Amino acid sequence: MTKKADKDQIRRQNRSIILQALRREGQMARIDLGRATRLSPATITAITSDMLDEGLIVGIEADEPKAPLARGRPRSLLALNGAAASVVGVRLSVNSIDLALADFTGRISCSRRVPFDTARADRDSFPALLVARIREFVADSAVDPASVREIGVASQGIVDTTTGEIVWSPAFAGRHIPIVAPLCDAFSADCTLSNDTNMITEALHWSEPGRYSGTFAVVMIDYGVGMGLFLDDHLFVGATGAAAEIGHANHIPGGALCRCGRRGCLEAYLADYALLRSATGLAEDTDPARVPVTGRTFEDLAQRAGAGDRAVLDTLERAGRALGYGLARLLAVIDPQRVVLTGAGVCTVPYMRAAMDAALEDALVEDLRRAVEIDVVPWNEDFIRRGLIARAMRRLDRGIFAAAGSSRRRPSDARPQRRTA
Amino acid sequence: MTKKADKDQIRRQNRSIILQALRREGQMARIDLGRATRLSPATITAITSDMLDEGLIVGIEADEPKAPLARGRPRSLLALNGAAASVVGVRLSVNSIDLALADFTGRISCSRRVPFDTARADRDSFPALLVARIREFVADSAVDPASVREIGVASQGIVDTTTGEIVWSPAFAGRHIPIVAPLCDAFSADCTLSNDTNMITEALHWSEPGRYSGTFAVVMIDYGVGMGLFLDDHLFVGATGAAAEIGHANHIPGGALCRCGRRGCLEAYLADYALLRSATGLAEDTDPARVPVTGRTFEDLAQRAGAGDRAVLDTLERAGRALGYGLARLLAVIDPQRVVLTGAGVCTVPYMRAAMDAALEDALVEDLRRAVEIDVVPWNEDFIRRGLIARAMRRLDRGIFAAAGSSRRRPSDARPQRRTA
Repeated sequence: MTKKADKDQIRRQNRSIILQALRREGQMARIDLGRATRLSPATITAITSDMLDEGLIVGIEADEPKAPLARGRPRSLLALNGAAASVVGVRLSVNSIDLALADFTGRISCSRRVPFDTARADRDSFPALLVARIREFVADSAVDPASVREIGVASQGIVDTTTGEIVWSPAFAGRHIPIVAPLCDAFSADCTLSNDTNMITEALHWSEPGRYSGTFAVVMIDYGVGMGLFLDDHLFVGATGAAAEIGHANHIPGGALCRCGRRGCLEAYLADYALLRSATGLAEDTDPARVPVTGRTFEDLAQRAGAGDRAVLDTLERAGRALGYGLARLLAVIDPQRVVLTGAGVCTVPYMRAAMDAALEDALVEDLRRAVEIDVVPWNEDFIRRGLIARAMRRLDRGIFAAAGSSRRRPSDARPQRRTA
Repeated sequence: MTKKADKDQIRRQNRSIILQALRREGQMARIDLGRATRLSPATITAITSDMLDEGLIVGIEADEPKAPLARGRPRSLLALNGAAASVVGVRLSVNSIDLALADFTGRISCSRRVPFDTARADRDSFPALLVARIREFVADSAVDPASVREIGVASQGIVDTTTGEIVWSPAFAGRHIPIVAPLCDAFSADCTLSNDTNMITEALHWSEPGRYSGTFAVVMIDYGVGMGLFLDDHLFVGATGAAAEIGHANHIPGGALCRCGRRGCLEAYLADYALLRSATGLAEDTDPARVPVTGRTFEDLAQRAGAGDRAVLDTLERAGRALGYGLARLLAVIDPQRVVLTGAGVCTVPYMRAAMDAALEDALVEDLRRAVEIDVVPWNEDFIRRGLIARAMRRLDRGIFAAAGSSRRRPSDARPQRRTA
């Protein structure tokens, strides 16, 4: 009852639709923009004219050869002005900060990985360190620091979107690390914090919206087991941002020891340490920190499974069974049309698949799983970074640049340089 | 990119907001309506003037005593015109069809329970029976059949919102019972089908929006274990309408036999048959259909627990543990701010509570459950009916009556009788 609709809202929505279409297609003629967005020629003309004035888009003369009999003006294309804004995506993981800077077209123009000491990172030391690293990164890039309008941070572990803190993460020694407030104090940008796996849903939705829309879940099998949920066409993060932690949904009460300290979590059967612990015959209550995983643990296990190693095959069968039960519980609650399995661990999925399918059938009545499709998507380190950028772009389009047109003109000092051809 | 915003949209939204405010408050002065909806006086005047013309609302002279020095016109109040539309809510359960008819104010003016034979109800026989029963019910009521604009059907079991069928339900002998298509053919109303427990979320949201908004889950402990999900301020039903089936989310692989035929479902530890089976020492693979439950099973068990019956106390402790694990898995995935326990079984919850709380703590790391509150809400048979009516009203407000004003005037033959005081 408190949501008041007004004329700005239509305008914002139409502007956002046009920006998204141009970002996806690169460059478009007005007539094609009209077809793609289903907006009227008058609306397209009015909005793109404002956007040209504001410097959000640029006109480009098409260099396609003119048909011999074509008359009139050369076909003019529109494209986003990359210089109109920048966004920074920051991924925090154990001992490293990954930074990426994208321009308004979504193109990543520079990126950098800087180390930090997880063992010493706590709520007092880390915020200032993060601000300094972002500041240096932006200063070393070619862009005007004032053009940075969105900073999106994704972290391993549990975040709280209501306080803007990382509640707990393997990437930090301390707890409750403030992120959003220190960044907002230091930069004149919109700053957001998310769990890293959540960003995979955004990356998939951006790259293939026909396949990854509606209601789908992503399960990432890796050093832990993460999840992202896209429900009714929106990223869903729960009441406090802690949703989609399927890795810590219990599989067997009192079961294998998880890195979180609880017993029987799905992660304790599927993550790299869990597989290696089982395959090497260690007891299931062995401290995960004492299991000697490496960056190649999944590949090594897949190789040994391929060579017929019985201990590894049994481990992967047990893991597949745990995964099947975990998916069955997820399906019963969410009824997704698609589940995506990804992460560094997907190379082991072929050896889990039969047990997973059998467990799914054992665990859940057919009527509750008849509609779902399971995709196995090779892991791509870039998913989280691309998801951060895709989300930042959506926020820009729906936020400041959607609103800009309602005041008709921005002051000229805030206007990016025009490059109209 | 295909969602085109237009001026109608603002108008629809504002009309819907005003209709909801009037339904909630009963009658309001224009000035109070402005405060409650945050719409401008000009918008309120324009929209309510249209609505008066269309017969959706009526003006009432306030009979409150005028202050001695008050001047000008008597304070005029606005209220919904009950005769503007009717909605029918239909609840299908084992052997009975519950019908309710509400007017445009949301007041239920008549209701009826008619029996049918679950054992003989299949996809061929039931649709015609349902149409006939609804037709008789409306004919016997005082309302014009043409005024029925929404028919909402809620059923036990698994529904498919994409096909409008009941896929499977204990209320039917057959499978895939078509509901939406036959109703649409027979009535000139908008017809919808939902799982019955989903409607509880709508009833709670309508009755106490301050408490039941945002992201919350309802778990109904009854003849089965149902769930409703309200996520990011919307009823969530999944890709095909089958979401929120926590009762069939597995608790223990290979565990107790569930009515669905699978083993270890949460329902097989919590539903009436599950508790009675365990309390009477029957094996956990005893066919649920052979457990002699009655309408008083939960009360009987609660009474025996209160009297210190060891077998019942052990059963409820085990059930509480299963419930705690089930909630922990739900919290890990959804991160709700609130979970509501309800259903005929809540009278047994006091005897489950300690085990439930301990299991929740065992199963889930504290960071993933710190924000949730658990409400135990006494079961009210009327929840599902009220949820059906609340949902039908929201659909009316957002649908036909939100759109009506955009054509400025409806033809007078379609205009309900005006009762302007």
